[in-house]
Amino acid sequence: MTDVDYCVVGAGFAGLSAALRLKQSGRSVALLEARDRLGGRTFTETRDDGVWIDRGGAWVGPGQDRIYALMDEFGIPTYQQYTDGDAMMVVDGKQYRYRGTIPMTMSTWAVANLGAVFLELGELCKTIPLDAPWEAKRAAEWDRISLAKWLDDNVVSRPARELLEMAIAGCYTSAASEVSFLFVLYQMASGGGPGFVLGVEGAAQDARPVGGMGAIYRAMAAELGRSIHLSQPVRSIEQDDDGVTLRTAQLKVRARRAVVAVPIAIASQIHYEPMLPVDRSLLHQRMPSGSILKIAALYDEPFWRADGLSGQSAAPGSPAMVTIDAGTDVPAPGVMCIIVEGPPARALASMADGDRRAAVVGALAERFGKRAAAPIDYVEQNWTTEEYSGGGMLSHAPTGVLTEFGSALREPCGRIHWAGTETSSVMCGWIDGAVRSGERAAREVVAADHFVGAGAVADRR
Amino acid sequence: MTDVDYCVVGAGFAGLSAALRLKQSGRSVALLEARDRLGGRTFTETRDDGVWIDRGGAWVGPGQDRIYALMDEFGIPTYQQYTDGDAMMVVDGKQYRYRGTIPMTMSTWAVANLGAVFLELGELCKTIPLDAPWEAKRAAEWDRISLAKWLDDNVVSRPARELLEMAIAGCYTSAASEVSFLFVLYQMASGGGPGFVLGVEGAAQDARPVGGMGAIYRAMAAELGRSIHLSQPVRSIEQDDDGVTLRTAQLKVRARRAVVAVPIAIASQIHYEPMLPVDRSLLHQRMPSGSILKIAALYDEPFWRADGLSGQSAAPGSPAMVTIDAGTDVPAPGVMCIIVEGPPARALASMADGDRRAAVVGALAERFGKRAAAPIDYVEQNWTTEEYSGGGMLSHAPTGVLTEFGSALREPCGRIHWAGTETSSVMCGWIDGAVRSGERAAREVVAADHFVGAGAVADRR
Repeated sequence: MTDVDYCVVGAGFAGLSAALRLKQSGRSVALLEARDRLGGRTFTETRDDGVWIDRGGAWVGPGQDRIYALMDEFGIPTYQQYTDGDAMMVVDGKQYRYRGTIPMTMSTWAVANLGAVFLELGELCKTIPLDAPWEAKRAAEWDRISLAKWLDDNVVSRPARELLEMAIAGCYTSAASEVSFLFVLYQMASGGGPGFVLGVEGAAQDARPVGGMGAIYRAMAAELGRSIHLSQPVRSIEQDDDGVTLRTAQLKVRARRAVVAVPIAIASQIHYEPMLPVDRSLLHQRMPSGSILKIAALYDEPFWRADGLSGQSAAPGSPAMVTIDAGTDVPAPGVMCIIVEGPPARALASMADGDRRAAVVGALAERFGKRAAAPIDYVEQNWTTEEYSGGGMLSHAPTGVLTEFGSALREPCGRIHWAGTETSSVMCGWIDGAVRSGERAAREVVAADHFVGAGAVADRR
Repeated sequence: MTDVDYCVVGAGFAGLSAALRLKQSGRSVALLEARDRLGGRTFTETRDDGVWIDRGGAWVGPGQDRIYALMDEFGIPTYQQYTDGDAMMVVDGKQYRYRGTIPMTMSTWAVANLGAVFLELGELCKTIPLDAPWEAKRAAEWDRISLAKWLDDNVVSRPARELLEMAIAGCYTSAASEVSFLFVLYQMASGGGPGFVLGVEGAAQDARPVGGMGAIYRAMAAELGRSIHLSQPVRSIEQDDDGVTLRTAQLKVRARRAVVAVPIAIASQIHYEPMLPVDRSLLHQRMPSGSILKIAALYDEPFWRADGLSGQSAAPGSPAMVTIDAGTDVPAPGVMCIIVEGPPARALASMADGDRRAAVVGALAERFGKRAAAPIDYVEQNWTTEEYSGGGMLSHAPTGVLTEFGSALREPCGRIHWAGTETSSVMCGWIDGAVRSGERAAREVVAADHFVGAGAVADRR
């Protein structure tokens, strides 16, 4: 039995941020994490040679001020994502090299189509009120169709449509048919528009922290110290007039309020007593996670750079669907990151381990030459089987969910408050959104106690 | 610690049917139910005067052979739903009386539109392969749009569209924007087409068992006797090479195989060790329940019958959205059943109890005259707050889910088999579908053991 001011569930960036800010403001905190590791949907593995591999979320970019603030606080520098050289695209088995966001090697018609769609998406995003996307003037219309349907109706060129479907649906690690078009616009708008979401330099994949994401979350954890309890999946949260009681198989934590900072499908696996309000209960059934495999292939050096390639490539249908140079801030080894999302991730994950590795490495060799065929190390992270993420990377809203249940996303349920990147109206889906959500939840619980408790928090300081 | 051949989770019609058939074939069974009552999404309350009120699923109709077989087996007769007299429709505050399925009081244009849409839905249903709706030729197209979008594009008359949206989305107790159009076609096809789904006489609301659904499930339970354990929410199911171990707070049951017969969102709250295969895990996050209030207002007699009214009425936007005469097989008392589904159910449920009753009874009085204003009894069932149903009545598939994950609906996961009306390709969503699913799961576990166990079942008899 632990008695604290606040109990936080989930030690990803959202939960760590909530707990850290609460502790820094003088409150006592318990942070319960189901897994035996920190980081949630980020997960940095550091090899004996000092090379770090981000097996989950990895990049930061302009506008993501709160994750940058954390890095400032802990003195963690960033380095720029390698972007020199050509990107590659594989369409119908043929490889094209290109520079910039739009592959000019496509037909003029396809390029024009792609450009027009980008502009259109950007314009539509501007009409989304970030705090209440369901109040957009055309919200009802956009929430009645999937992303796939919108692409069908708005992208006439087949190669352009396939590329967009892979790129955009990839962000939600699900099939384009599963994701509400309103949710797509909202999520893009929360990052500043489609250019930020789909771009690299000056956008969502602009830079990385030295040491990987783990450098940040380990620093946060060090400050939280013994407040963190690993391997403690929370089974139940009871509320009464005075506080909350959280139970794991071993622990019972009594607190004034709880912050639940886990993916939405995972929050649904906790037993709440009394039952949560209807809209929140039903929301828990309605924002699923997707599928993603993130693989790192290590080489003595990033040989593709010498060939004038950036390492970025996109190949719909390939076992190496998307690649990006994931090297650290030193020149060696070379790290090629392979990201496979949505239905292809499920297909790839279902293969036998050896077959999958052979397929991925084979596709790399076809794309980057035979040196790619013999990595010195190969690290796979299958987020579809991460029980306590419920899949990867971002929970999405199917059609109808934002307009019907969106307002329940952040609304506290009595003494239970909600964090997690999905609850952030800025940078929703990114690590920065997770940090923002945790900091917002920390402010929220303190403010709620000042309001209802008439100085109770101040008394305890 | 209980050692049995098979353990069934959930004592709704699916679980009861599975357990009954297994027991009748000589196997030992444990049936674990989370609630302190039987019936799942059916729930019959029998008053002291013998009047029964079905607070959940209530009707049966032609083609629902397996629920009829159960009634035959236990000697439970049926009686016809009262359908004499006019039905009523309230559009824009004006009341219309009509007979037949289509309210001819609407404009000729609206009636023609409604008729054409019914015919079109019927034709589309015929193209759905019930065992694999995702293999329909146009499955991908239909699974990219919500029911709402299809209605927008195909029903030009506004009153016709509103009526259809209320009637069809009502079947899924959710907003029309939430439900995949492919799922709508599949579910309708599984019942024989839109005429069955939306009809009364000779259709889905043709008849009722004498004594209500409880007469059937209590008879089944009597035969199962001490195999049933109430108030035992299952927390975990572990699988190993030899069998399964199910744990509740008090019980530990060891069995050869498990049949999980609960709504899909509820199945997701059980902890599985090892983790379920990816497609099943992700399916658990993707088929939500909806919202429904079912209310019975009792009167000394069914006074509306004398006024030439059947008691059937539809009033989009009213607190008494849909009504139907729910009398028993004797002339008194009169029972008026009020059904409110989807978003209006959430709105109504959020009102204070007294306000809600006043609103519902007030709407009845407006529609059926002032005698409706003073019921002798008033019974509410709010399925949105039934924790172990996760809402009501039928889990639906949002867009993209059937095509991506549909094949996981019935696919056993090692020694865990799945039942529940949502897994039935015939009468999916009805009580009959639940019975079929339970009987199919019973056959499945026995066949699996004959196959892998080389006579192990026979040895134990």
